[in-house]
Amino acid sequence: MDLGKLIQERIRDIPDYPKPGVMFKDITPLLADHVAFAGVVDSIVNHHGRGTIDKIVGIEARGFILAAPVAYHFGAGFVPVRKKGKLPARTHEETYDLEYGTETIEIHSDGLEPGERVLIVDDVLATGGTARAAAELVRRGGGDVVGLSVLLELSFLHGRDKLGNLDVHSLVTV
Amino acid sequence: MDLGKLIQERIRDIPDYPKPGVMFKDITPLLADHVAFAGVVDSIVNHHGRGTIDKIVGIEARGFILAAPVAYHFGAGFVPVRKKGKLPARTHEETYDLEYGTETIEIHSDGLEPGERVLIVDDVLATGGTARAAAELVRRGGGDVVGLSVLLELSFLHGRDKLGNLDVHSLVTV
Repeated sequence: MDLGKLIQERIRDIPDYPKPGVMFKDITPLLADHVAFAGVVDSIVNHHGRGTIDKIVGIEARGFILAAPVAYHFGAGFVPVRKKGKLPARTHEETYDLEYGTETIEIHSDGLEPGERVLIVDDVLATGGTARAAAELVRRGGGDVVGLSVLLELSFLHGRDKLGNLDVHSLVTV
Repeated sequence: MDLGKLIQERIRDIPDYPKPGVMFKDITPLLADHVAFAGVVDSIVNHHGRGTIDKIVGIEARGFILAAPVAYHFGAGFVPVRKKGKLPARTHEETYDLEYGTETIEIHSDGLEPGERVLIVDDVLATGGTARAAAELVRRGGGDVVGLSVLLELSFLHGRDKLGNLDVHSLVTV
């Protein structure tokens, strides 16, 4: 089966989650299907090509589930971006706007070496606020942001428009 | 270099985190080292053997970083155990005691098929409360818990004693 079609079949819509009026895209059926899960990981790695990336940055928490096997398959190191207060050593932090309020995310200050080629991997690209903040954290950490790979892009939220000239690669767009 | 030695070199002690008197074991330097990271994943898979596991259960959030590549390398599906309120569909839940208060974790009710062979993967085995609750969630979901693999076992906290006859595999014990 075509990977794009398989991915769409394995993502389920959960109405009114996390709040009324929102249609949540639940990727857990895809993760549970070993063929779909491996297909997603392989597809991200093949898009960029082995040997082109030094570090994978994954975004807490669902982003870790895709970013970590991508790092493993690339033979790259893994560096987490986490919500404020979860990383134990010195960090850089970025704050960005949510629909209501703000969110702050962090990266360890010593997580990247200067000039390392970094791919950011997340599950969903929505409004782009998290992705933009993560890219800024990588730059402040000295890394060279090669691109952003996501499983699912919600194009009606125009997240791509917030990301400047960042190379955005999404496996499925809705 | 011997993997056990490499792992110990790449885990750093952070004193007084998350609170005074606690020595936190920070695994992020290990994750960032692609040789150590891949070595840990390969070692967990080799311990059990490919073809012996249907699903990997990973525990939010750091547990995802090891469990997901283990699932990928096994060719197994991945099922998350998350803190209460983070999973969007119907769940089973388990509550267990912490030093102060309690914690509740969940698994999707339809995450496992009856009789599936499940390996639970987490970063650290400490008091065993989380691991015991995760094993109970797997059983309630119809799965057969084959074992628990962790990167680091803090043996002075006697977590193993809480886990009955569960097969516990730790790469490094301190």
